[in-house]
Amino acid sequence: MSSEAFDFTPLFAPHLPAPAARWKGFPKYNFVGGHNDGEAVPIPALIEAARSVLQREGHTLATYGLRSGAQGYEPLRGFIAEKLRVRAGMRCADEDVLVTSGSLQGLDLVNEIMLAPGDTVLVEQFTYGGALTRLARRGVNVVGIPLDADGVRIDALSAALERLESDGIRPKFIYVIPTVQNPTGAIMGVQRRQELLRVAKRFDVPIFEDECYADLTWSGERPPALHALDDDGRVIHIGSFSKSIAPALRVGYLVADWPVMSRILACKTDGGSGALEQMVLAEFCANEFDRHVNTLNRRLEAKLDVLIEALSEQFGTSAEFVRPDGGIFLWVKLPAEVDTLALVAPALAEGVAFNPGPEWSTDAPPARSALRLCFAFPDEQTIRAGVAKLAEVCSAQTGVPPRIANVDRR
Amino acid sequence: MSSEAFDFTPLFAPHLPAPAARWKGFPKYNFVGGHNDGEAVPIPALIEAARSVLQREGHTLATYGLRSGAQGYEPLRGFIAEKLRVRAGMRCADEDVLVTSGSLQGLDLVNEIMLAPGDTVLVEQFTYGGALTRLARRGVNVVGIPLDADGVRIDALSAALERLESDGIRPKFIYVIPTVQNPTGAIMGVQRRQELLRVAKRFDVPIFEDECYADLTWSGERPPALHALDDDGRVIHIGSFSKSIAPALRVGYLVADWPVMSRILACKTDGGSGALEQMVLAEFCANEFDRHVNTLNRRLEAKLDVLIEALSEQFGTSAEFVRPDGGIFLWVKLPAEVDTLALVAPALAEGVAFNPGPEWSTDAPPARSALRLCFAFPDEQTIRAGVAKLAEVCSAQTGVPPRIANVDRR
Repeated sequence: MSSEAFDFTPLFAPHLPAPAARWKGFPKYNFVGGHNDGEAVPIPALIEAARSVLQREGHTLATYGLRSGAQGYEPLRGFIAEKLRVRAGMRCADEDVLVTSGSLQGLDLVNEIMLAPGDTVLVEQFTYGGALTRLARRGVNVVGIPLDADGVRIDALSAALERLESDGIRPKFIYVIPTVQNPTGAIMGVQRRQELLRVAKRFDVPIFEDECYADLTWSGERPPALHALDDDGRVIHIGSFSKSIAPALRVGYLVADWPVMSRILACKTDGGSGALEQMVLAEFCANEFDRHVNTLNRRLEAKLDVLIEALSEQFGTSAEFVRPDGGIFLWVKLPAEVDTLALVAPALAEGVAFNPGPEWSTDAPPARSALRLCFAFPDEQTIRAGVAKLAEVCSAQTGVPPRIANVDRR
Repeated sequence: MSSEAFDFTPLFAPHLPAPAARWKGFPKYNFVGGHNDGEAVPIPALIEAARSVLQREGHTLATYGLRSGAQGYEPLRGFIAEKLRVRAGMRCADEDVLVTSGSLQGLDLVNEIMLAPGDTVLVEQFTYGGALTRLARRGVNVVGIPLDADGVRIDALSAALERLESDGIRPKFIYVIPTVQNPTGAIMGVQRRQELLRVAKRFDVPIFEDECYADLTWSGERPPALHALDDDGRVIHIGSFSKSIAPALRVGYLVADWPVMSRILACKTDGGSGALEQMVLAEFCANEFDRHVNTLNRRLEAKLDVLIEALSEQFGTSAEFVRPDGGIFLWVKLPAEVDTLALVAPALAEGVAFNPGPEWSTDAPPARSALRLCFAFPDEQTIRAGVAKLAEVCSAQTGVPPRIANVDRR
């Protein structure tokens, strides 16, 4: 450029998030993000799916929304409705399903139609960090409800709703991840689900159910969705193929009745979600979904066990966790003297990336010593080496663990 | 459902757009939307691209953003940078390019980082309807600048900027579609582009350049982009493969310097745009883009000529237009007594869909009798039959045209 660069700074909108940093590649020991197992991508079957669907109906790519309208590729919606019937006990028709660009777009759309600054929502005390940053950006008051091994605690939820009611506040929704809760991995039982619905009904509050991990269970089974147990249409349900097939395919879905769906469609002004991805996925899933997910789950469970073994070896009794029955992450509690936020930078300097507990929590203190380790992406050797490196950094910074792999580091 | 349906109405956010209507399929004579020619989708080459890229690097689908980070698949960014160098004279590197989910996402992201309610932007008086609805939803003041055959009029632009300056208002940007202007089809010459940049510089205003149709010119050539002629980085450039390859593939791009790019990346929280689409497109474009676009342009020009012939036959001298040198739409002016907004419903009842002028205009009156006809999607027979049907409806409603296909209808 021949002259001084134009300065955009005074023209930016107010309240923007901080500028992004340039991408420098993945860290060596990558325990963050919803990445999955590269070896598990079903390449030949995806190639065959692409070939067959493009051969048959590739010419429809010339039209926005293919020939299926704004809710997404009809055969994929059909598959989703059937999968949710068989696996999650849901009764929904193709026209109750919206294909979204990942479940993140589902989150954004539901937030968009429901939330204004100053509104209140309830969420699990430990929950998806991306949901928390989205709510914060919308200027919403977030009330965290403590969890136990079965998921969100009903006594605490009732108490919070009562407090809000006595303050004259009607929350916009209760956001929950009932199956393979992020980050705790808890799978809420049927009875707890029914209690949750009863409380929501008593306080006249809708539920926003995020089941994006629900297909990843070691048993291959999942409890009925809240949407399935709901008898008056108060549950908006989202899910995803990011976890069950591949995260770079940005294909998720949203299930809601028409009064909600028609509002969401009016806000989904993106010209449709990616059609090639929808077509290939529908073609692939029709024959391969169950087999693929079974194989993937076996691989994930094996990686989880490697992670647990490595943690036990390197952290001994300093690392507490409940082995989850599904998913791609482990929620680890370290002794109270460890501040995981302070550990992020020194760990990253050694190539280890993890999610510090406070970023996955509505309230920092209870999560101060916790961290989330995603185990689907690194191979077994990298998991072992990464956990060893993490223990080394943690020990140097905090004195925890005092002994690493039976060697006293103090 | 066993009980009364839950009522979401009191919980919706304020100021939502009107709820969507259920999709009923395409109208018989579909002259709206950016749909393209189904026969022109390069199916065998897309199949081969999918096979070869998935075979080589399908395992990277297991990672968000593949191995390319948040700006999109690196080989595609490389192709885009090279295409923009060769075709539009732009100097940009891979790291100046962001792959977006259609150029619509580019529009949304630029609006998001730049605009707050009450801000002012300048746009061409006749412009893309989707841009106008987006600006309206953000509560922005939109100043329309009249066009001539060469695009936005510099005298009118200067005058508007002077007025704003004297009112103490610094506009956030000038949004223009310089190549194959939507809806007029005008291609702005180099001299006008230079004048536009000089005026923008004089008033210290950035330019938001939307070149999503720029690859669709009958000559195969396009003038240098404003971004190419800019010497101080004031131009944010967006483009798309929706028009040149297929609209259902949601792949567009944005080019900006890092101070803008880093702000945009912080707001692009979608987990990346669809990776399979990016991979297939990059693989396809490397060898096939030029040949494909040439073939497509020949097909489009032939359809345009059919449309013009049909209009002349059915509307005679009642339909005025300038034959565009590219694109997928024709901007038609009917006699002043025709109100095209009032024509929408009766035409649709006969299966004819078109864009009424006021929806593509900042000010309704100058566009009251205009309409936009998209010609890429319908086949030649449908174009002829649709124009005949439109003339019939228009004549019945307004008395224009007085004679249809040499038959006096009065």
